[in-house]
Amino acid sequence: MAEVTKEEVTESEDFVQINFPSGEYTYLTPFKFLDKDDHSNTALIILNQKLDNNTLTKVWASTVLHVCADGGANRLYECFESEEVRSSFIPHFIVGDLDSIRSDVQSYYERKGTKVIPQTSQYATDFTKAITLTKIYFHSSEGKEFLKQGPIESECGMLEYSKNTSMTKDSVINLYALGGIDGRFDQTISSINQLYKLNVSDPNINLYLLTACDMIFLLRAGTSYVGYDSKSVFNASSKLPTCGLLPLGSNEVCITTKGLKYDVKNWKTDMTGKVSSSNAISGINGFIVEADHPIIMNIEVDLSKSS
Amino acid sequence: MAEVTKEEVTESEDFVQINFPSGEYTYLTPFKFLDKDDHSNTALIILNQKLDNNTLTKVWASTVLHVCADGGANRLYECFESEEVRSSFIPHFIVGDLDSIRSDVQSYYERKGTKVIPQTSQYATDFTKAITLTKIYFHSSEGKEFLKQGPIESECGMLEYSKNTSMTKDSVINLYALGGIDGRFDQTISSINQLYKLNVSDPNINLYLLTACDMIFLLRAGTSYVGYDSKSVFNASSKLPTCGLLPLGSNEVCITTKGLKYDVKNWKTDMTGKVSSSNAISGINGFIVEADHPIIMNIEVDLSKSS
Repeated sequence: MAEVTKEEVTESEDFVQINFPSGEYTYLTPFKFLDKDDHSNTALIILNQKLDNNTLTKVWASTVLHVCADGGANRLYECFESEEVRSSFIPHFIVGDLDSIRSDVQSYYERKGTKVIPQTSQYATDFTKAITLTKIYFHSSEGKEFLKQGPIESECGMLEYSKNTSMTKDSVINLYALGGIDGRFDQTISSINQLYKLNVSDPNINLYLLTACDMIFLLRAGTSYVGYDSKSVFNASSKLPTCGLLPLGSNEVCITTKGLKYDVKNWKTDMTGKVSSSNAISGINGFIVEADHPIIMNIEVDLSKSS
Repeated sequence: MAEVTKEEVTESEDFVQINFPSGEYTYLTPFKFLDKDDHSNTALIILNQKLDNNTLTKVWASTVLHVCADGGANRLYECFESEEVRSSFIPHFIVGDLDSIRSDVQSYYERKGTKVIPQTSQYATDFTKAITLTKIYFHSSEGKEFLKQGPIESECGMLEYSKNTSMTKDSVINLYALGGIDGRFDQTISSINQLYKLNVSDPNINLYLLTACDMIFLLRAGTSYVGYDSKSVFNASSKLPTCGLLPLGSNEVCITTKGLKYDVKNWKTDMTGKVSSSNAISGINGFIVEADHPIIMNIEVDLSKSS
């Protein structure tokens, strides 16, 4: 007889200590980049949406590689009123089909030393091109040289290079993207699509999408432990940072959690049925999610406040 | 031998006339409410996100029932600087668990004649409660009386009433929601979840989610014809209004379109694979989407411009 697994929802205390899981698990530290110490293999990708100044400067200071995807360069330029401050935030690269960047903005950054890489292919978004760039930068031994010196064929030279060059796969890249959410809804969903595709194509890249009020990322199938030093990193407006577990892949997901305000056990969630929104984080040092398929998570976080 | 259906993508002209499909189809007119003539069975639901003044006043003037979901009342109140203007926008109802509405805002609207209906159940979102209210209002013969006079049990009296009362199902309700997208991402996805759930529970309710830059709605399985008088209603910033077809339900969707810039045929789309974003509308009077499962669509539209 098949075992019947019962769905359960339990309301937990507001502040609970969550230990590491006993078996195998993926350890995620989405907020670690905000520490002063370790920024290796971190990149910021700026997309074409209005930027909040405080958020930008925090993420900029916490990442080593800075890339604008096409019109993202306009947003970076417009983010500063004074030329003195603007000239302290010069991206390493601008990449994309370059149909959105203003010519004065492009000239400005080129004068300041930014390398502009046109990639005109319409079979990839500017976001995807920026991700390919970071992969070449961090994962191929001569990638930095290639990106800086070229020559890079202007339609899809970068993509070709990444396909034909051996890449080290052992180091993890943490990518933070600003502007992937909050614009037109098809662009928002295209960014979520990016999370699912990267999970298959490049499991050693962790992509974190930052919005004005939350951070969005993918939890892989299996057990994940999401850790942080203290909940103060969230800077959330509510006592407990709000969160959601969002089954946006193409199937129902069965989840079990530990360290959320409303913990679930064997809980089946899908977009045409029930979805866990307006949940919250009660684990003071981390929480656990077990899922039988990849699932998207968002956590309330506010980097716009000075902290 | 099974027939092999080939995927095709065709780039179309910018302005093409699209005739009605020959077989059975669903006829959708998302922009008809902006006409001066016919506003029957239309409602505006205001959720708890910042409101754009121009968008609000346009949708308000084009709908007959005005409902605030909890903190949505604060946003309505804050939308106007002058008391004279504010007092011309008095909602018929405020509904929800009322944990977000400011007490001065609640008193203000109560004094002006708004009926406030507390529904404290945590098993439904305030958005769902507002939708249930509009259903009772339009689809039950004594619903208006019930909502105005009560008594309505304060936990989930409305939901109970809607379950135990016979509802006319023959008239279509067009619901326009402001603030369902653009906030915390779990709330955005909860609004999309609402579209999928309504499609099953109340197929005679069409829900349209309006954001600062687009309109989001569900296309049912089968053939849909989306019609409009002219593309000027979109008020889009680009020559052709941008759009996306977003397979956010729990399965792959196979689509065929006619009247889009990049028309597809037998095109399989899913969130872990390829998704049609940054497409555009080329049909001057409408376009056709055939889909084997429900799919979410967004169309670029800007109601914030004065037109």
